[in-house]
Amino acid sequence: MEFSSKLLENAVYEISQLPGIGKRTALRLALHLLKQPKDQTTALSSSLLKLREEIKFCTNCHNISDVALCEICANPKRDESLVCVVEDIRDVMAIENTGQYRGLYHVLGGRISPMEGVGPQNLTINSLVSKSKEGIIKELIFALSSTMEGDTTNFYIYKQIESLDVKTSTIARGIAVGDELEYADEVTLGRSILNRVPFENSLKL
Amino acid sequence: MEFSSKLLENAVYEISQLPGIGKRTALRLALHLLKQPKDQTTALSSSLLKLREEIKFCTNCHNISDVALCEICANPKRDESLVCVVEDIRDVMAIENTGQYRGLYHVLGGRISPMEGVGPQNLTINSLVSKSKEGIIKELIFALSSTMEGDTTNFYIYKQIESLDVKTSTIARGIAVGDELEYADEVTLGRSILNRVPFENSLKL
Repeated sequence: MEFSSKLLENAVYEISQLPGIGKRTALRLALHLLKQPKDQTTALSSSLLKLREEIKFCTNCHNISDVALCEICANPKRDESLVCVVEDIRDVMAIENTGQYRGLYHVLGGRISPMEGVGPQNLTINSLVSKSKEGIIKELIFALSSTMEGDTTNFYIYKQIESLDVKTSTIARGIAVGDELEYADEVTLGRSILNRVPFENSLKL
Repeated sequence: MEFSSKLLENAVYEISQLPGIGKRTALRLALHLLKQPKDQTTALSSSLLKLREEIKFCTNCHNISDVALCEICANPKRDESLVCVVEDIRDVMAIENTGQYRGLYHVLGGRISPMEGVGPQNLTINSLVSKSKEGIIKELIFALSSTMEGDTTNFYIYKQIESLDVKTSTIARGIAVGDELEYADEVTLGRSILNRVPFENSLKL
């Protein structure tokens, strides 16, 4: 693309560095900002800068937080002996939305992926292991995505805390509520039969 | 969505003000920026601010430009008696890419759309009309989108310059080169028959 303005070209280049945004979309967004009041662009760029520069992470669970100890970790009503291990803040938000979980979280910040250059040292695994050694945590629930990277990460952590007196579990994989059996993939359907639960359990929900 | 951080919430809100970007995508983009070096966020926000604050428009054709007279208008080799009327800079870029046009442009900045609150006074129509009265322009080529708004805008401009000694034309609508007739819509196919061109013309290309 040939631009008539260097300013526009720069802005389009920077916007197109974002994931899933190509040059065409970037141009559309830049032209949109030009048509809006200046305030909108000022608010957008200052909020991005502020986010990047002032962001803090909870010292206990490593979730994004404006204070040293996040709301969840600071809540005395939550069960600190139960810790759910997730990849990032979006997983925390998803689980919190269910209203079914009263324990704490541990945010890894990603998963082990040699392809993307992410090793165990880039994640908060050491902090999780040392927390587990303190003896407060009774159960770790692995809620990572069921990909090869997720499984690798689960296994890596498991190996490090195997000898400790900490129970480990993973979230149940199975047919989604309301889904038809005939459209389910074989692996999921197979797992849902192997990991079947007593019928009485389903009556309690 | 409930956020654990006000900074993150603000950034997500501002990003989701952009067209076609919802809250989920905005969150994904914000988390992406957090994982990248600080420089990227700084470059992005400063390029947006610079674009919005320092942007200039060519005084002649109203295209985005860093100088008072854009490259195209300043080029003595271009035919100033021929002016192509377009909606925005993307159309200029598309036509320039063809390498087939040696005249100048006039960028309207949009099209008349009462639904979106865009009237003739929001566009650069007055400037086009007064340019036409100067007697330099011999032909105006309307290259607006063939929607109701585009047609309205064409007609509005046409009515204002009707009495002047300026030829008007619109770009040809027809079957795209390489397309199959059977998949074309009726309106386009109908127009392509009504506006057929002498066979010898196609030999020259």
